[in-house]
Amino acid sequence: MEDQVYVGVDLGGTTIKVGLCDHQGKLLNTYEGPTGTEHGSDVVLDNIAQYVRKLVDDSPYEWEQVAGIGAGFAGFMNIPEGIVKLAPNLGWRNVPVKQILEAKLGKTVKIDNDANIAALGEAWSGAGAGIANCVCYTLGTGVGGGIIINGRIYQGYNGTAGELGHMNVIPDLESIDCGCGKRGCLETVSSATGIIRMAKEAVERGEHTSLALVPNITAKDVFDAAKTGDEVALRIVNRAAMYIGKSMALISVILNPQRFIVGGGVSKAGDILFDAIRKHYHACAQETAREGVDIVPAVLGNDAGIVGAAGLNLRG
Amino acid sequence: MEDQVYVGVDLGGTTIKVGLCDHQGKLLNTYEGPTGTEHGSDVVLDNIAQYVRKLVDDSPYEWEQVAGIGAGFAGFMNIPEGIVKLAPNLGWRNVPVKQILEAKLGKTVKIDNDANIAALGEAWSGAGAGIANCVCYTLGTGVGGGIIINGRIYQGYNGTAGELGHMNVIPDLESIDCGCGKRGCLETVSSATGIIRMAKEAVERGEHTSLALVPNITAKDVFDAAKTGDEVALRIVNRAAMYIGKSMALISVILNPQRFIVGGGVSKAGDILFDAIRKHYHACAQETAREGVDIVPAVLGNDAGIVGAAGLNLRG
Repeated sequence: MEDQVYVGVDLGGTTIKVGLCDHQGKLLNTYEGPTGTEHGSDVVLDNIAQYVRKLVDDSPYEWEQVAGIGAGFAGFMNIPEGIVKLAPNLGWRNVPVKQILEAKLGKTVKIDNDANIAALGEAWSGAGAGIANCVCYTLGTGVGGGIIINGRIYQGYNGTAGELGHMNVIPDLESIDCGCGKRGCLETVSSATGIIRMAKEAVERGEHTSLALVPNITAKDVFDAAKTGDEVALRIVNRAAMYIGKSMALISVILNPQRFIVGGGVSKAGDILFDAIRKHYHACAQETAREGVDIVPAVLGNDAGIVGAAGLNLRG
Repeated sequence: MEDQVYVGVDLGGTTIKVGLCDHQGKLLNTYEGPTGTEHGSDVVLDNIAQYVRKLVDDSPYEWEQVAGIGAGFAGFMNIPEGIVKLAPNLGWRNVPVKQILEAKLGKTVKIDNDANIAALGEAWSGAGAGIANCVCYTLGTGVGGGIIINGRIYQGYNGTAGELGHMNVIPDLESIDCGCGKRGCLETVSSATGIIRMAKEAVERGEHTSLALVPNITAKDVFDAAKTGDEVALRIVNRAAMYIGKSMALISVILNPQRFIVGGGVSKAGDILFDAIRKHYHACAQETAREGVDIVPAVLGNDAGIVGAAGLNLRG
């Protein structure tokens, strides 16, 4: 097994990134090219196949050493059968990715959603390396999640395990509608979208904040303002962090993972975010359930998806 | 393996029940005797050993066919090492149960807490038979829980997985202190203790309810009153059920189990409780996460502990 390598495919709306990993999840080399979304799924899948062959050709490894290929998608899918049921950013419906790519490449192909593969990447050779049970948050436009049990992605009964952004943790009195059809979901507050919304609302209310001078507020603007001591920005950061901490406290009495890993664009805010998450987690979590449990930043950055996709054939 | 049998020990403060199961979790025969708590742990462990030998002697099976022994305790324990760290109902501290019983009986001995073994019993041959992933609630004096993943008890990092009674689901404005040191835990409302407390408070407030005439209100009294249409009792039952349903909705986006199993004394209330739990679960749970998921009563009753303890050597 040690001379086998694994290919990961991270499929974005404009760019396809592919990467080669060794059996321990070390990223050996990468390649990328345009997705070609506008030409439809046949062309996109052709592009994937071409980039994967190029990736391996450019590496010191032989095609025969490739033990499997994994690919991550944003959307809904039938994971066991490898069918992308709905990928809004690609405009796909019911594309049998596994079957098509296996025919084109002659290798086992597995697929999963982007939050799960990012979690698996971190668990395999990132911030969770060597940890059997961890829970990963991806704080971006929404809040994604992945549950790792015994080193593998845990899918649940119909593939919706780890949908942490849809934990109902916001009290009814302060809750707003979520895109999922419910109210009070974590991601309405603790995603970049939620942080931006809270900042805009504060500005609209005429609160005294440096954010009033920012034309198109981003989550980074809010964190930057908080770092300069802006009270309104600090309150928003604290609120986003509080509900993440509360959701982790809930998870601790359900799953009692050893480690929480937090990645995604919002996590780049660094200590100001992590210190607040840890403070609220500590305040909310039951004492025995949080003993020895830590909360750490993801370390693989944008590579987490490629690495995790590559890992699907070992730990999917 | 099919001719092997498994012994389960359910250790109560006054009675020790032991039972013999086949390899599929079918309870073959049982035996019980006094615990002898007042004589200390040496005598209790001697009693266990004696009852286990008697159980097997009285059965059509040979001692050689016993593949392992499991025992459940109420309290804190080091499960991998088989040490009961604190069992308040027995007055035990740091009793190396596994080591002592293995020496006395010459068989592998495993231990676990009572909520976990009840969950395993139901998962193995009760309401969860044939289901890989399920979550069990035990509604009694407190609210216990057990997480079954791939047919086995999931312990978590330091053994606190499945502490569902300590999920913080009660909004701050209505929360009270829990014995665990936190506020707002599920069991402050949805346990027998919580139901009795809410009933007594309603009576003290002078609310119009038939419960005002009941001298020592029990949870059963509250359900009986609710069944006759008593509005106050109905409100209390609804509140207890609502927070169970909400906690299940949270678990559905974290773990997405196929089935929730609800046992324990309070669950005997039947349809009036289960209908309300299902209604609130349906209202709170994200649609994709609850697809095909059901909520069912436990079926093994008081035998769940014995069966689950017996199962520890197969699925612990």
